[in-house]
Amino acid sequence: MPERLLEELQSTIEREIPMCGHMGVHVHSYSERGLTLRAPLERNINHQGTAFAGSLNALCTMAGWASVFMLTRRNGLAGDIVIRRSAIKYLRPVDSAEIFANCAAVADVDRDFFLEMLQKKGQAKLDLRVEILTDLGVAVSFTGSYVVVDGS
Amino acid sequence: MPERLLEELQSTIEREIPMCGHMGVHVHSYSERGLTLRAPLERNINHQGTAFAGSLNALCTMAGWASVFMLTRRNGLAGDIVIRRSAIKYLRPVDSAEIFANCAAVADVDRDFFLEMLQKKGQAKLDLRVEILTDLGVAVSFTGSYVVVDGS
Repeated sequence: MPERLLEELQSTIEREIPMCGHMGVHVHSYSERGLTLRAPLERNINHQGTAFAGSLNALCTMAGWASVFMLTRRNGLAGDIVIRRSAIKYLRPVDSAEIFANCAAVADVDRDFFLEMLQKKGQAKLDLRVEILTDLGVAVSFTGSYVVVDGS
Repeated sequence: MPERLLEELQSTIEREIPMCGHMGVHVHSYSERGLTLRAPLERNINHQGTAFAGSLNALCTMAGWASVFMLTRRNGLAGDIVIRRSAIKYLRPVDSAEIFANCAAVADVDRDFFLEMLQKKGQAKLDLRVEILTDLGVAVSFTGSYVVVDGS
C-alpha cells in the first residue's frame, strides 16, 4: 500500500501543483525516520548561486504536507490537508546540487492522538518539524502546523 | 532614481531567480505605504484551486527582500540581503486571479536606526511585516527578519 500511496503523492505534487513541478520536487524516501523530499539546486537557485529562500520554504512546507498525506491515507482516512502556520530559520546557505528536506516522524503518542481526533471529531491538527541538512549541519529549521478536515 | 532601481529590482527578481520567473512575480507598486509585489493565481495554484502555500510564502519573502533592496539602494548603500527567519499564518485561502503581497513601510525611527547601523557597522537587521489581502480581509500574515551585510 505505501508504494501506491507514494505514487499518488508524487503525482499530486508534480502534476497538480505547477510550482512543485517547476521546482522539480520528488519524494526521495519514506521510512520510520520520516519522509524526505528532494529538489535540484539548479531549478531553485537565487541570484547569489545558492538556494532561493522561497524554494526552501516551499520544499519544507510540502515535506510536512506529504507526511500528513501519508499518515492519513495509510490509516484509511481522507480529508483536506491545510497548513495553518509555520516558522522557519535560515541558518546557512544551501549550495548542494540536490536539496533534501526531511520531515521527522512524529512520536507515537502524538500520531495516535491526531488519528483519534480525526476519526472522532472529523478534524485534527499536527505539528511537524522539517530540516534541510548540508555537510556543515542543519541549514534550515522549519516547524509547521497542519490541519486535516475530513470532508467525506 | 526610484524608477531605475525598480527596473533593476524587477530584472533581478524575474531573470536571476528562476522560481520567481515561473511564479510571474512583478513589482506592482512602491509608495509611502510600502512595496507591493503581485503574481497570478494561475501559475501558483494548488490541487484545490487556491494559491499554493509555498508560493504565498515565497511572494511574502520576496516582498520583504525587495523592500530592503529599495531602502538600501535608495540610500546609496550596497550589501547582500539575506532573510534569517520568518513566520507566517495562513488565515484564509487565496483564490483571487492576482495575488498581492504588501510589505508595510517601516517606521522612520526603525529605518534610520537600520541605515545608521549599516553605515557604521557594515551590517544591520530589519524586521518587516507583509500581508496578503483578499476581499474578506487579511489572508496571509508574514513577518520576516532580514540582514544586510555590506560586502563592499
